[in-house]
Amino acid sequence: MIERVTPEIDAGRFPAKRSVGEDVLVEADVFCDGHDVLAAEIRFRRAQDRDWLDAPMAHVENDRWQGRFPVTDLGRYRFTVRGWVDRFASWRRDFGRKVEAGQDVSVDILTGAELVERAIRRGKGGVGRELRRFCTLVKDGDVDAALDDELAALVARAPDRSEAVTYERELEVLVDPPDARFSTWYELFPRSTAPTPGRHGTFKDVEARLGYVEDLGFDVLYLPPIHPIGHTNRKGPNNTSHAGQRDPGSPWGIGSGEGGHKAVHPDLGTIEDFDHLVATARDRHGIEVALDVAFQCSPDHPYVKTNPEWFKHRPDGTVQFAENPPKRYEDIYPLDFESESWRELWDELKSVVEFWIGHGVRIFRVDNPHTKPFRFWEWLIGEVKRDHPEIVFLSEAFTRPKVMYRLAKAGFTQSYTYFAWRNTKHDLIEYLTELTRTEVREYFRPNLWPNTPDILNEYLQLGGRPAFMNRLVLAATLGASYGIYGPAFELMEHEPIRPGSEEYLHSEKYEIRHWDLDRDDSLAPFIARVNRIRRENAALQSNERLWFLPIDNDQLIAYTKFTEDRDNVIVMVVNLDPGHTQSGWLGLPLADLGLDPSGSFQVHDLLTDARFLWEGEHNFVELNPHVVPAHVFRIRHHVRNEHDFEYYL
Amino acid sequence: MIERVTPEIDAGRFPAKRSVGEDVLVEADVFCDGHDVLAAEIRFRRAQDRDWLDAPMAHVENDRWQGRFPVTDLGRYRFTVRGWVDRFASWRRDFGRKVEAGQDVSVDILTGAELVERAIRRGKGGVGRELRRFCTLVKDGDVDAALDDELAALVARAPDRSEAVTYERELEVLVDPPDARFSTWYELFPRSTAPTPGRHGTFKDVEARLGYVEDLGFDVLYLPPIHPIGHTNRKGPNNTSHAGQRDPGSPWGIGSGEGGHKAVHPDLGTIEDFDHLVATARDRHGIEVALDVAFQCSPDHPYVKTNPEWFKHRPDGTVQFAENPPKRYEDIYPLDFESESWRELWDELKSVVEFWIGHGVRIFRVDNPHTKPFRFWEWLIGEVKRDHPEIVFLSEAFTRPKVMYRLAKAGFTQSYTYFAWRNTKHDLIEYLTELTRTEVREYFRPNLWPNTPDILNEYLQLGGRPAFMNRLVLAATLGASYGIYGPAFELMEHEPIRPGSEEYLHSEKYEIRHWDLDRDDSLAPFIARVNRIRRENAALQSNERLWFLPIDNDQLIAYTKFTEDRDNVIVMVVNLDPGHTQSGWLGLPLADLGLDPSGSFQVHDLLTDARFLWEGEHNFVELNPHVVPAHVFRIRHHVRNEHDFEYYL
Repeated sequence: MIERVTPEIDAGRFPAKRSVGEDVLVEADVFCDGHDVLAAEIRFRRAQDRDWLDAPMAHVENDRWQGRFPVTDLGRYRFTVRGWVDRFASWRRDFGRKVEAGQDVSVDILTGAELVERAIRRGKGGVGRELRRFCTLVKDGDVDAALDDELAALVARAPDRSEAVTYERELEVLVDPPDARFSTWYELFPRSTAPTPGRHGTFKDVEARLGYVEDLGFDVLYLPPIHPIGHTNRKGPNNTSHAGQRDPGSPWGIGSGEGGHKAVHPDLGTIEDFDHLVATARDRHGIEVALDVAFQCSPDHPYVKTNPEWFKHRPDGTVQFAENPPKRYEDIYPLDFESESWRELWDELKSVVEFWIGHGVRIFRVDNPHTKPFRFWEWLIGEVKRDHPEIVFLSEAFTRPKVMYRLAKAGFTQSYTYFAWRNTKHDLIEYLTELTRTEVREYFRPNLWPNTPDILNEYLQLGGRPAFMNRLVLAATLGASYGIYGPAFELMEHEPIRPGSEEYLHSEKYEIRHWDLDRDDSLAPFIARVNRIRRENAALQSNERLWFLPIDNDQLIAYTKFTEDRDNVIVMVVNLDPGHTQSGWLGLPLADLGLDPSGSFQVHDLLTDARFLWEGEHNFVELNPHVVPAHVFRIRHHVRNEHDFEYYL
Repeated sequence: MIERVTPEIDAGRFPAKRSVGEDVLVEADVFCDGHDVLAAEIRFRRAQDRDWLDAPMAHVENDRWQGRFPVTDLGRYRFTVRGWVDRFASWRRDFGRKVEAGQDVSVDILTGAELVERAIRRGKGGVGRELRRFCTLVKDGDVDAALDDELAALVARAPDRSEAVTYERELEVLVDPPDARFSTWYELFPRSTAPTPGRHGTFKDVEARLGYVEDLGFDVLYLPPIHPIGHTNRKGPNNTSHAGQRDPGSPWGIGSGEGGHKAVHPDLGTIEDFDHLVATARDRHGIEVALDVAFQCSPDHPYVKTNPEWFKHRPDGTVQFAENPPKRYEDIYPLDFESESWRELWDELKSVVEFWIGHGVRIFRVDNPHTKPFRFWEWLIGEVKRDHPEIVFLSEAFTRPKVMYRLAKAGFTQSYTYFAWRNTKHDLIEYLTELTRTEVREYFRPNLWPNTPDILNEYLQLGGRPAFMNRLVLAATLGASYGIYGPAFELMEHEPIRPGSEEYLHSEKYEIRHWDLDRDDSLAPFIARVNRIRRENAALQSNERLWFLPIDNDQLIAYTKFTEDRDNVIVMVVNLDPGHTQSGWLGLPLADLGLDPSGSFQVHDLLTDARFLWEGEHNFVELNPHVVPAHVFRIRHHVRNEHDFEYYL
């Protein structure tokens, strides 16, 4: 019997996700009636291949078996589990017990000889010759030969899988590029990148900003929509209903007489400028330019005229604008994904993604996917990734948990999270535990953002510089992928449009801003340091092995991330109180982290370069938020003592 | 989207189990993209019916929906979940918000009118007429009419399921007779029921014992195998290897020249005597006679000669006897379920069960099912229950947990458990929580036995009368089904064959015993009282709603069971220490149990008839094991005070 195979999502309906170079750890309950010895293995292959490969599984405990196989190529893999009764191993175990008990085994040994003969018939080449030698001895009643480890190993090389059972389902793994797992995002509004105040920024200005973004340590530069912006019902500064003549409008009000989703806003430059930006970012700065996919239209979008059947119409014949009553978004027409012309619409939207892939874009941030059908996304992402398995889609769904998880199952590579609203120790531990220790981790890759153009949470509004610093450390070390919306973040922009709102005052969504990147108090150097720590420490590049640690102060949160081989062990302590120094006793599970629980060891604070000698499992920490509100320790090694000297050994 | 439907076992591979008259509580995650209002329902039918019935589901929280359907007939039911967007309810909610915000709704109301018109086209008879009246008003712009609750109710009576989604799997529920859920078992060896010492007991003697068993409150009388016993390698008293001429041998060494699995042991009487026993037990005493199904043979079983191909043969031509090296069971030949003649063997074994069903037996206890293939049991039980859905099979598998659970999934109605080895508070809570609060409860019905002919645990060996009393209370109140092996239990037989063994000294498995049922210290009256309490209190007749309660003493275990309507609330406190009086403060979640948390209430100890007035959530208890080691309280009612008098109201 083979049961409870993991990873398996919704009875195999959806693939688990991994990135190139990772192993897939497979577990299963494997057992049979009676007391026979079993063997089990994983069968796996790339989806496009015909032949299965095998990887061994081993018994862990309580009939649970474990094995792993590597995924080296982008795309889909299939796997299942196979198990069988190992007749020779069963016989050998029982035979050994009888010999030990001094029982007459003269008949039993003949059963063993018969099993060896069968192995000879199954085996090939050299194994058969060795087996024949053993077989003669066993037939002659040579008990030692029958129990010889070498014989067991030889028989195991010609396993009898004739009665093998294969798990009833084949399961899938979707293998994404490495930056699906580990990525560091920076969002900026191209319109605000001009060096001179008041001028509309361009792709060339963004290009000039690439060195800054690279110095900060980001490898994905995400741009809000770069398309022409509609004029009808355009929003003015601070989301007022009517824009003035010079107000640029929201980039999400896509489409005008100048084009739609496949055009660029003339004020940003030309498509050639964009191509140049993408190539320069990738080739000179190691940065991927990510675009926004916002499948919605301004009333001036060409689709409204060319394909009115793609929109819902009200009984008075007007097109239905977006609304979430009583809120009205009159500058936005939603597309009707379930109209009678849905197939043409879907194909057109796919061609939009393919258009930008053609212009070198490999990463897309998808706006509000939860207001479009799940089956559309499953189809679109499936289609795109079939030809382009290197593409990454980030789901910007801030909605109910099950909807967010289903979008991830449907194919999104990464997902925004509730991180911005998880600011207490309890909430952070509970949420990150759900994301990294439950089945969710198999398909939902969190991308943690302390702020976005839509979310300036109260913690940042009120907490000052320490709040920005500790939220950055939390995002960057709790998640293998995280991002910030800058320069608002590094310049600690924190004024809301009004008390109680999470909208920025003078939001870039509705107006051009000019940012002074050279401000003395900019967090840029701190961010650069944190991102360098992420690049240099493999433990922070995966969401595996995030363990929260005990610390006796509810304003301090502590956790460790470490590589499977314990070569890289990082310990974070963050002071969540932006106002006061907090201290406490930190508990470290030293044995689990590969250290002697009773010894001394050195910890190195990668943020400040300070080094401390610690001893045993409990050590004292204190964090003044006005200096640095966090420790990011690397555990260096145990501290030498006389036992390390050669003459003492 | 419809996900995570429960009960669903292994993606629908196995049915969930219920008994006649119960409800099936169905839950599912039901959600869609966007913000529309949804509706959902259960679709269910008896497996043999064509038409589905519907039962409504309601939203609980976090996109989880819940509903229930009744199972009134034995056999299999099928069910699934269906959900759809409720267009009218969605429109109505948004329309109401717009009205409230004072927005112009002159166009929106027309959309509503259109939805009402569609409902008219779908609806039948009287509803249409009422709807037409509303439709005219709504078309005329009557906002109050559009939002009228009556209109909403009318439209809901003609739901638009044209875009409904049905869950991708149909799931099954196996409906068993009520005694699959609630049963009280007594095991005895017929050979030991003769009124005169030394004589071999008979079916007639067992018949004479029925009144005693009924007085004790048992409704299932389980008899170890009643077939002829082999002579070759017959075991002697205390499991010695060679039996004397007059030694009766183990009833599990089935088969001799006098017949096999369809014959009765001549010393017990005739098949007619057996038929009379079964009929008398059922008709006069309300007791079902349960037989042992032990699919194995003595070397003298007729099958060994008539069907040698059903047995494994050793290289020297002898039949392979049972063994678990180095242990040898030379009086037993196991059947080979995977021989080339397996089909004939399986059919023969099925005919054995059918033979005894033909003789009125409805309940079978199956010996060591874990040493036979799972697929054999799935086939056998499936075949038998297709024609006889009233049959109950109890699995006697004491083996690894996953094997026990798989046997239950494969079809066993009830299962033996590890209860005999769970004697501490921690172990009892952990195990019963696993059995009653995890998915296990959907398919595994525990039958708790404090002792069996194979298991005299050390707690009973050493704990004296208090140990027997508290283990009985635990078994009878933790499990809806439990059983004892008597008269060994009520006469507190506690001598093992040797220290460290769980085998009885002078076990009835190998010799005839004579029991003095009239002994002054017999626990019979206590057992009768406990069983009467079980019959009179519905809370104890189901494994639903077992809650462990806090009590500040690790030697005291406390728990409650209650009916869904809280009409019957029973609270148990058991002193696990057989040597000393123990006391502690018991915590009761009064609000959850339907009582005023700050009020007073009466508790009635059903074991001693004592009544206590308690107040609030914490009350003191003390149990002297040498008097009665347990409380079985029924919470009676709140205590009257002046507020209950009419003139005070």
